[in-house]
Amino acid sequence: MRHTSFADQRCSLARSLDLIGEWWTLLIVREAFFGTRRFGEFQAQLGIAPNVLTQRLHKLVDGGVLAVTQTSQNGKALEYRLTDKGRDLYPVIVALVQWGDRHEAWPDGPPVALQDRASGQPLPRMQPRAADGRVLGPADVQVVAGPGASAADRERLQAVHARRQARSSGTHT
Amino acid sequence: MRHTSFADQRCSLARSLDLIGEWWTLLIVREAFFGTRRFGEFQAQLGIAPNVLTQRLHKLVDGGVLAVTQTSQNGKALEYRLTDKGRDLYPVIVALVQWGDRHEAWPDGPPVALQDRASGQPLPRMQPRAADGRVLGPADVQVVAGPGASAADRERLQAVHARRQARSSGTHT
Repeated sequence: MRHTSFADQRCSLARSLDLIGEWWTLLIVREAFFGTRRFGEFQAQLGIAPNVLTQRLHKLVDGGVLAVTQTSQNGKALEYRLTDKGRDLYPVIVALVQWGDRHEAWPDGPPVALQDRASGQPLPRMQPRAADGRVLGPADVQVVAGPGASAADRERLQAVHARRQARSSGTHT
Repeated sequence: MRHTSFADQRCSLARSLDLIGEWWTLLIVREAFFGTRRFGEFQAQLGIAPNVLTQRLHKLVDGGVLAVTQTSQNGKALEYRLTDKGRDLYPVIVALVQWGDRHEAWPDGPPVALQDRASGQPLPRMQPRAADGRVLGPADVQVVAGPGASAADRERLQAVHARRQARSSGTHT
């Protein structure tokens, strides 16, 4: 149920959500990272209705996140594999898993843990970092007009900047 | 339209998506990072229907991502602000924006750019890293049973592990 086209919004977040923000979509991508490739495997692992799975797989193929290939053993069986664009979703998935582990508390702790295979150590928390390694929070990051900014985008960013200035100068808390 | 309860799935990704995977939800969080606090401001910035906005704000407040406060000037006006849990979504949003910038191509380039405020340099791409700074891709990360793993979780992880072994030993490509 889309109420408006997110792809129309001039924002990379909105455009990303347009492709992967729907129910099931990122869970299908997670399954693909686990090595799941066949329709029946996705269905069994996710407990998803076949018509919904068909729809979501098509969307991911159309959007270039998954590629379909026919298997060599059997020309009719299709396999869905992550493209480079799909594999680039790995940081998004790890960031979401880590957020869930921190904040969506489990009675016995998280069911699954991610480890650096080489050292066996848990994955450190992903955070935006500067080139020199400093962790960057929202206040350390400046949102500026990019090459594709429209006049309205620039106006919007100026308004955000002005509001931030007014608040940090103590007019309101 | 939920087809099953994601929160029932024993996976932090599924639980995260249960709270923030819905249309609009992360865009509302993005607006909150931009300093938007009032119902009317969210509505104007997002062009979202009031009933949908009401629903999503309630969900975010119930889920502890936003907190509601009454403003000092006017006891009746409500302000929605990010909690610590909400602010912790920053890495998720940056990872999604960067993915969109890379892969959801714009005719003139991205409308908005993120810069390290201190250096003026663009934000480096966020990636999972080991404690010693090595970038970790999916093949470098081991998914192991966590403290809350059920018998079914352990079985599942063993199957994933076995499939990976079989494939990397060259039985199938």
